[in-house]
Amino acid sequence: MKMNKINRLLHTQHPIIQGGMVWCSGWRLASAVSEAGGLGLLGAGSMYPDILREHIRKCKKATGKPFGVNVPLMYPDIQQIMEILVEEKVPVVFTSAGNPKTWTGFLKEHGVTVGHVVSSTKFALKCEEAGVDLIVAEGFEAGGHNGREETTTMCLIPSIRQVTSLPLLAAGGIATGRSMLAAMALGADGVQMGTRFALTEESSAHENFKKICLSLEEGETKLLLKKLSPTRLITRSEFTKAVEEAEARGASSEELRILLGRGRAKKGMFEGNLEEGELEIGQVASQCRKLQSAREVIHEIITEYNLLLSEGFHSF
Amino acid sequence: MKMNKINRLLHTQHPIIQGGMVWCSGWRLASAVSEAGGLGLLGAGSMYPDILREHIRKCKKATGKPFGVNVPLMYPDIQQIMEILVEEKVPVVFTSAGNPKTWTGFLKEHGVTVGHVVSSTKFALKCEEAGVDLIVAEGFEAGGHNGREETTTMCLIPSIRQVTSLPLLAAGGIATGRSMLAAMALGADGVQMGTRFALTEESSAHENFKKICLSLEEGETKLLLKKLSPTRLITRSEFTKAVEEAEARGASSEELRILLGRGRAKKGMFEGNLEEGELEIGQVASQCRKLQSAREVIHEIITEYNLLLSEGFHSF
Repeated sequence: MKMNKINRLLHTQHPIIQGGMVWCSGWRLASAVSEAGGLGLLGAGSMYPDILREHIRKCKKATGKPFGVNVPLMYPDIQQIMEILVEEKVPVVFTSAGNPKTWTGFLKEHGVTVGHVVSSTKFALKCEEAGVDLIVAEGFEAGGHNGREETTTMCLIPSIRQVTSLPLLAAGGIATGRSMLAAMALGADGVQMGTRFALTEESSAHENFKKICLSLEEGETKLLLKKLSPTRLITRSEFTKAVEEAEARGASSEELRILLGRGRAKKGMFEGNLEEGELEIGQVASQCRKLQSAREVIHEIITEYNLLLSEGFHSF
Repeated sequence: MKMNKINRLLHTQHPIIQGGMVWCSGWRLASAVSEAGGLGLLGAGSMYPDILREHIRKCKKATGKPFGVNVPLMYPDIQQIMEILVEEKVPVVFTSAGNPKTWTGFLKEHGVTVGHVVSSTKFALKCEEAGVDLIVAEGFEAGGHNGREETTTMCLIPSIRQVTSLPLLAAGGIATGRSMLAAMALGADGVQMGTRFALTEESSAHENFKKICLSLEEGETKLLLKKLSPTRLITRSEFTKAVEEAEARGASSEELRILLGRGRAKKGMFEGNLEEGELEIGQVASQCRKLQSAREVIHEIITEYNLLLSEGFHSF
């Protein structure tokens, strides 16, 4: 096992982190990724506090290896969630969608390794000030909720690498050994992948959702709902078409809020209602064609990465 | 000199192509890039036929090395332009914004090496059918006119690499040795850079335009005018603010066409009117801070590329 910054910090075999996603990443997926040598994350964003505690306990039973939890900081029961994370001795927490200063100190006092997800260099600097252990930088091509600046992974990673020496994970557009190698070239120490793991056997997403994602052509996702919170959605859906129409005629954020309503992500991704549900996935879905296990995914990526590396690059 | 597909095909020392850009890339820039070991391209998109012929002749006088011309295929005088290219024995032509089948045969019959610029895998396949010699694949982060699918360089290059073995140039978000290395990892054989060369001493863009570009922060460009032709613009400008406001209230393509009017790109980029002009540049501008010569740019990129390569990657 070759060591790098991420493997040393997170005690993983491979610097591959499975992003914590709503409705996709419960204990089955997280433990499978950790067992296969990466780091699995539970997605707290779609779990009530007691459900999260249950998933943490099941994850600990399923693997003796480290795992983590992703927590969107705008979560309503955030205080309670943080207490659960500490009580259950979760080794790694990635926070997102909020100020890294609010909870990093608390978590670190309790021995938790803390990462924070950003979509800009400005926020990467705030992470460093807040004392996080690692930064996840996520580009425009990523699925689900996304930055307002629309900076792509190709532009974001080198910019952040220039201002910080903290361990850095690249996210957005990464699903293969090839894109992992590119991420490392851009200055990342490892990768966080959402889309590819959302479409594995162990993902808790509905079969219908996995099926449509595995059939997407290039160009079939789009960043929408920008007046609310920019979100990358599958365009092949009645709900998305309604959003696109509303936005084309200049619908206000209030109109969009009413159109969106509540519970649409669950309806689409967990219950498999492809017409009325909100279907969040990354651009890179069009490169994912097979339903595989998390272990197969990691094996395939590392094999391809090492193969490309052994073929080498030209110098000039 | 190490050879790769691009160097063999285009007879360059380095697989670095300077993108043909409106109002930036006349004979001074193109010849300087070719002299420094890359391939310079004249941007025919902002030249009347007689002006183009003049630039071709001056370019031939300024360098004995190969250079090329970029031709947007929706150009009004396209027939006349094509005849000039052949009469003047231009060795390399990159076509864009149109069907590669229309002119590839004609150009190749006259011994021209032909590239075509695409923003999707679907069009890359059309290029192969049309018999082009190389493909330029340009991601969402690129400046100026851009694809409707919004596919980023990180996602686009591996997808195209999977379906064709033609020489492939990556464009969009590339301005450094680091991003060039990432592009090669993604499967490209070389890179086409616009933004970084638009901001060199030899670029014919107005000093005001270069200055504002070299001061842009991350997030200060945006893909706008999507109902006409998606175009990446600098947001720090009165004209862009007017476009953003119009789009937020759902302005029709007709309203946008009137707002845009004619000659705005010339006004902004060539005449330096930063408030009323259209200012096109790529996301990666926020990584460009110094006005340098084209030679310095190429030297810096190759040096950084080779340095990163010599530091090596971990295998896992």
